[in-house]
Amino acid sequence: MSSDKKTAEPAEKLNKGAKRPEWTPEGGGAEFTTRLMDGISAVHDGIASSPPAARLHAPPKRRELSVDDYVAGVLSGDRTILSRAITLVESNSQAHSRIASQVVKALLPHTGNSVRVGITGVPGAGKSTLIDMLGKRLCDRGHKVAVLAVDPSSSVTKGSILGDKTRMENLARHQNAFIRPSPSGGTLGGLTRKSRETLLLCEAAGHEVILVETVGVGQSEAAVRSMVDFFLLMVITGAGDELQGIKKGVMELADAILINKADGANLLKANATRAEYGRILHYIRPATEGWETKALVCSAATGAGIDEMWNVIGEFMRNVKESGVFAERRRQQTLAWVYAMVEDYLKQKFYGCEAVTEARPLMETRVVSGDMSATEAAAELIRIFETAKG
Amino acid sequence: MSSDKKTAEPAEKLNKGAKRPEWTPEGGGAEFTTRLMDGISAVHDGIASSPPAARLHAPPKRRELSVDDYVAGVLSGDRTILSRAITLVESNSQAHSRIASQVVKALLPHTGNSVRVGITGVPGAGKSTLIDMLGKRLCDRGHKVAVLAVDPSSSVTKGSILGDKTRMENLARHQNAFIRPSPSGGTLGGLTRKSRETLLLCEAAGHEVILVETVGVGQSEAAVRSMVDFFLLMVITGAGDELQGIKKGVMELADAILINKADGANLLKANATRAEYGRILHYIRPATEGWETKALVCSAATGAGIDEMWNVIGEFMRNVKESGVFAERRRQQTLAWVYAMVEDYLKQKFYGCEAVTEARPLMETRVVSGDMSATEAAAELIRIFETAKG
Repeated sequence: MSSDKKTAEPAEKLNKGAKRPEWTPEGGGAEFTTRLMDGISAVHDGIASSPPAARLHAPPKRRELSVDDYVAGVLSGDRTILSRAITLVESNSQAHSRIASQVVKALLPHTGNSVRVGITGVPGAGKSTLIDMLGKRLCDRGHKVAVLAVDPSSSVTKGSILGDKTRMENLARHQNAFIRPSPSGGTLGGLTRKSRETLLLCEAAGHEVILVETVGVGQSEAAVRSMVDFFLLMVITGAGDELQGIKKGVMELADAILINKADGANLLKANATRAEYGRILHYIRPATEGWETKALVCSAATGAGIDEMWNVIGEFMRNVKESGVFAERRRQQTLAWVYAMVEDYLKQKFYGCEAVTEARPLMETRVVSGDMSATEAAAELIRIFETAKG
Repeated sequence: MSSDKKTAEPAEKLNKGAKRPEWTPEGGGAEFTTRLMDGISAVHDGIASSPPAARLHAPPKRRELSVDDYVAGVLSGDRTILSRAITLVESNSQAHSRIASQVVKALLPHTGNSVRVGITGVPGAGKSTLIDMLGKRLCDRGHKVAVLAVDPSSSVTKGSILGDKTRMENLARHQNAFIRPSPSGGTLGGLTRKSRETLLLCEAAGHEVILVETVGVGQSEAAVRSMVDFFLLMVITGAGDELQGIKKGVMELADAILINKADGANLLKANATRAEYGRILHYIRPATEGWETKALVCSAATGAGIDEMWNVIGEFMRNVKESGVFAERRRQQTLAWVYAMVEDYLKQKFYGCEAVTEARPLMETRVVSGDMSATEAAAELIRIFETAKG
């Protein structure tokens, strides 16, 4: 009975319980917690994400780096060491977490100096093409650009669509660019922690623009919104009905809606779509205080409109820095992140409790059949949880 | 530093920590949990909400009712006993909770047979006038109608704007109507529990239509959406800019948007607004599977359009019952409610922990100043919490 979950809203909540984290509730301290945040104990280590050149020349067995090695390497902008530091941050092993925690802490004073831009849109909207084109232009102008991805679906497909270097050929070849695909596996909370810490590492390595890509899976847009300054929603042109079904609430997270593929025969349609979005945006509270959400057009393929879009982001940054909204948002994002991690931990501890997992099917059946009230069932599950903890 | 919270999103999360629930983490069982759900220990008992007639004839000191008295009284449709049962459900005393829990459980088999309609809209949109008019018409046709309210703001204003009988004069006088204002005080989680159980009591008392009114405060629309079949957003006509700023995500919860005050000189404007909403709704994923969200006009003052709106709700109910969406949603709502109560409990336990409350200001300062990473701070708060629990 409990396996049949149709409606989106409560299902997400319920799905939390479907996970069976592999950790035990014993232990304590940072490394324990870091593991808890993800609930996956597989260790992803190695050189998977170093640039191809580095990989070819890498010795068969690399020497261990100390915390100081990592810190100095990242600060000097060494891409291989940055890659390895990110691998450390992404690792779920306790030993790695301990070192990663020290590395991140030591680098903290060197973080915060980038423009953080989130980019979302359905597959096919042209996110990779845009990032390739925008990133290359920024790199050509001497900026260091990092591309990260948050993709909770990659644990299912076992392959990442986002941050795919083969889809960002021009950018991937550029010496000023650093592209890191989404780590595979783990909960959204775990991915968020990893992406946030990766973002900090990239900032410490001197990247002035961080592009964080995501797809519309679960709560991933909200997760990315919570770590960026500017959030961009990419859509494609089309008749009203084709556009129907933009994910609930996503438009309200965006600081700009970018209508892609405004080229050739599609140009007029794209401009009409922009006008229509402009009207719709009047009805929606803007995502950022003091900033009116913009509807823009571009052609990621030809590059038209991309500089204009970047200028809008520049205008946005000036605006929010002047008004104080920028500093306040970053402050709030950091604090909200702390409590999100805590709440993730609390939930995982409950839903990961074996006695709770065993009791849930019967409780759910009894509640749905009307044999038990919801309040009774909640009380009973809490009693089981508290008893099991001893 | 932590008192300065500007941006809406993280602030809501952070505000959870601002509460200092007055319970202690000892104890167990349903009555303990019920108290936890609200975290307010003041006892609201008495005859405040009995109908005026009943109040006049009430003896100075009422005799205690047994669980059987309550159950029989509610099932017979006795309004005084229904009122007292709701007062019991709303009470935060352990003794009352224990009886309330038994009463709700005994009545469960008699619940579920109403049309549950949620109504939201800014103050001034005309919710009370609509409910008065719609409710009276339904009562005149022989239906029993209950009006409830979920108003988290009433704990601040100490006075309820919603479910106010003086603003629903025609309905309040009708023998088929039962109006219950929002309980004052408590967390949204606590209010939700009380409103849900009140809704069940009203169903057991034979009410076939339950109207749940709310204002756009915090997450109250989402809370009401989670307990109703059909959700109505009331707006008023006006130029585009006047309408700007509809609360984030609320349009996407609605099964219909009702443009009120479509009368006199305002009629044309109202129809234009309806057309505009119609276009906007094309871009938003509907709240209910298989149901296209409607934009409607009415005049709550003259009654024009109200029957048409009720017919739309009838059409909706037939549609969702046929497709199975109705049964599945009710099932999911019940289960989601169980886990929402559990998660409320978990959070309240953490944020109510004295050692955590003491440690938070320093942790927040250190995180914001960059002296400590967010992950470290979360781990440290968890360590403090786990240690404090013993």
